Amino acid sequence: MSGTYDPRAPGLMTFHDALGDFRSGTDSPVRYLERCLEAIARHEPAVKAFTSANLDAAMAAAGASARRYRQGAPLSPVDGLPIAIKDVFETRDAPRSYGAAMLARQPGTRDAAIVHALRQGGAAIVGKTALPELGFGPPAATTNPWDAGRTPGGSSSGSAASVGAAMVPAAIGTQGRGSLTRPASFCGVYAFKPGHGTIHRGGDGGAQATNTHVGALAGSLEDAWIVARFLSAAAGPHPGHLGLKGPEGPPDAAKPRRLVRLEAAGWPRTEDAARAAYEGLLHAIEGAGIEVMPAAADPAFAALEGELAEAGAALGTIADFETRWPLVALIEDDVEAGGRGFDPLTVERGLKRLEVSAEAYERALRTRQAYRERLEALAADGVFMVSPTATGPAPEGLASTGSSVYQWASSLAGNPVVSLPFMAAGGMPLGLQVEGFIGQDAALMGAALWLDREFQAGRI
Amino acid sequence: MSGTYDPRAPGLMTFHDALGDFRSGTDSPVRYLERCLEAIARHEPAVKAFTSANLDAAMAAAGASARRYRQGAPLSPVDGLPIAIKDVFETRDAPRSYGAAMLARQPGTRDAAIVHALRQGGAAIVGKTALPELGFGPPAATTNPWDAGRTPGGSSSGSAASVGAAMVPAAIGTQGRGSLTRPASFCGVYAFKPGHGTIHRGGDGGAQATNTHVGALAGSLEDAWIVARFLSAAAGPHPGHLGLKGPEGPPDAAKPRRLVRLEAAGWPRTEDAARAAYEGLLHAIEGAGIEVMPAAADPAFAALEGELAEAGAALGTIADFETRWPLVALIEDDVEAGGRGFDPLTVERGLKRLEVSAEAYERALRTRQAYRERLEALAADGVFMVSPTATGPAPEGLASTGSSVYQWASSLAGNPVVSLPFMAAGGMPLGLQVEGFIGQDAALMGAALWLDREFQAGRI
Repeated sequence: MSGTYDPRAPGLMTFHDALGDFRSGTDSPVRYLERCLEAIARHEPAVKAFTSANLDAAMAAAGASARRYRQGAPLSPVDGLPIAIKDVFETRDAPRSYGAAMLARQPGTRDAAIVHALRQGGAAIVGKTALPELGFGPPAATTNPWDAGRTPGGSSSGSAASVGAAMVPAAIGTQGRGSLTRPASFCGVYAFKPGHGTIHRGGDGGAQATNTHVGALAGSLEDAWIVARFLSAAAGPHPGHLGLKGPEGPPDAAKPRRLVRLEAAGWPRTEDAARAAYEGLLHAIEGAGIEVMPAAADPAFAALEGELAEAGAALGTIADFETRWPLVALIEDDVEAGGRGFDPLTVERGLKRLEVSAEAYERALRTRQAYRERLEALAADGVFMVSPTATGPAPEGLASTGSSVYQWASSLAGNPVVSLPFMAAGGMPLGLQVEGFIGQDAALMGAALWLDREFQAGRI
Repeated sequence: MSGTYDPRAPGLMTFHDALGDFRSGTDSPVRYLERCLEAIARHEPAVKAFTSANLDAAMAAAGASARRYRQGAPLSPVDGLPIAIKDVFETRDAPRSYGAAMLARQPGTRDAAIVHALRQGGAAIVGKTALPELGFGPPAATTNPWDAGRTPGGSSSGSAASVGAAMVPAAIGTQGRGSLTRPASFCGVYAFKPGHGTIHRGGDGGAQATNTHVGALAGSLEDAWIVARFLSAAAGPHPGHLGLKGPEGPPDAAKPRRLVRLEAAGWPRTEDAARAAYEGLLHAIEGAGIEVMPAAADPAFAALEGELAEAGAALGTIADFETRWPLVALIEDDVEAGGRGFDPLTVERGLKRLEVSAEAYERALRTRQAYRERLEALAADGVFMVSPTATGPAPEGLASTGSSVYQWASSLAGNPVVSLPFMAAGGMPLGLQVEGFIGQDAALMGAALWLDREFQAGRI
């Protein structure tokens, strides 16, 4: 899987386009899963995407699915889908490690809301995927499928790598600050972070954190949409929130009218090769008759961009305060008991989170609320925000998962976002990040599908 | 503990007034806990309030606390407090049954946010308390401490009974629809349901449900305040919410200016003896120079009261939809596996919750939001809402936990509420429910303390 990244290379697995063959009998969920298992056998020793796998259970699910397709009665749009789950979610048949060896000693007892929904919909859950210890400690051993010497990004490291190495067509990830689209960019896969709260977070160990989004990493935009849309309906939105609106299948592609460049704090840190690839892509998009506008050209967007530094700090304050339980509490208990269950770096970073005061947290909540209201007022038909998904290709080495600066704005806003693996820099993949407005996931996906059709298939 | 209820009888345990003796050495947390253990040995066989107890751990915590008081360095206002925990919360040293024998087979692995905070504050966690199966199935075996032939109410059955039988000075309960103040009324104890979200719900199995409140049942208003205020600071507010504002100790008593009678849908169902006791108490309160106003006398309150029937339905819709995971999912998994882990009534009621559509849920969320905004606009200094806490004393038998109709309004609004065990009907206790406005918990508590001082100690 290593080598020079070519965004036109047919490397990723797709699922939605196999359903016709499942129905006609020329392919089946069992054979599909077998292809996944072959890829896992080939790539997993180097990629190390999984923390645990239950291949027998996955094969049993695929077998049951195959019978349903033969009878012309699949249970749902994800029936037979081999899928990997970020190991922050509970499953009844495997431990939930949350990236920590200590927690992996406890058996699983129940399924997270999304896992329950996937099983009920007939999906084949292949395994759990790696992340840094508790999400913020030392990175997992997972490597980038395009270059084993580079990070896959984080914190949905294993989910992005499992899709990038074409071991599965889709994987579930989560994003609090920068954990979905960044690894998608590094691993050359699609990501869809739906609007905040559209998918139930119950059974994610960090489910209480109000910035957390559940999203999909996939080999195609279509599968990313299908998975997210199914989960929002079957698992429900997170309590207190509204569900994902739009068709069960992918929305119609719709040419965007205007793309606002919202590069904010990320641009000064962006590598030259990444800037060049991005400018080139935007130029091609402009050539297709889409207006590409700098944020500075509109006072409202310009003001918003100016606030992003503070907003990013608010995001950090909120995330730090809201993970005091259960993550930091687990560290405190272990330290108090004289244990050494967690890495010293995890302990240091975790205990530092206790320094955030309730007053600072309340201020950050107000900053977030104000930011959301200002941003919502800018929503307009056919208008989306764009930036590179990352400041460059995956950094070398595994010690850091890279910068999440380009994820802050949409994590804070709760807006839906896609990352499209359209670009390359230094022979490695780089994503184009497209951000929509809250409640308008389907419009974003329609625009992304249009861009995908025009610019993914060899036109740049 | 049975017999004719006399609201002036000195039956309940209090803790805040023991601290001086702890400091002076004439009493100690160990001796205090020993008195609890004696009461438990005497009453628990009949009351059956607990699902599990860990008395050795409680005694170890009391011993450590005693040393701190001797050194003049208690950890917090709850240092040494013997407290019982509703068995919806996780604790690392006991199973979390959620009222279900099937779940009680799984060991505990971590502490809920409030349990973590209580331990860090030096409290002595005595045990877990009973509730109906999954909160909505058949009631627990717990009996009313005033009459073993009657229900203690639900769903915080064991928590209210453990305080009512003077086995502990305080217990933690939760309320989604009617689960804190109703059992307090039936068992003759104080309850404080702080404003919604002021206390972290993490590790409560129903924590995702957005109506859920964490609150305190106690032998005194002062202890109820101290516990809630401590938890809000130490465990933090629930993510996305603001904490409880006010002093660490009880606020100053402050005479209320006006009490608005908001009896709504409950009045036609209220028993004559309960009406008479309530009218008598309100008459006495009026006699003290406080205006008592029928809701009908103010068009805004009258309109709100008229909406309560619909609002109550919205509350039910929200609660049903939001407990699909994990509670109903656990039932589905058990049924699918051919198990009989849950009572048929629990299964029937649980699966019925799946009939609530996403559209009905979204409508209910909007109804709740509109109701909250209208109610918030009525907030004024010195103004509180009152009603009986229940339609009568605890019903006979254990098959039903009684009507929660008087809890709907404040559960929907998220307002802070206290229940004061001031009344009697048919020889059993009956509470006065006083409701404040969101964010104004301390003002409500000040008014309640004033009423408590004037009307609890033998003045009626």
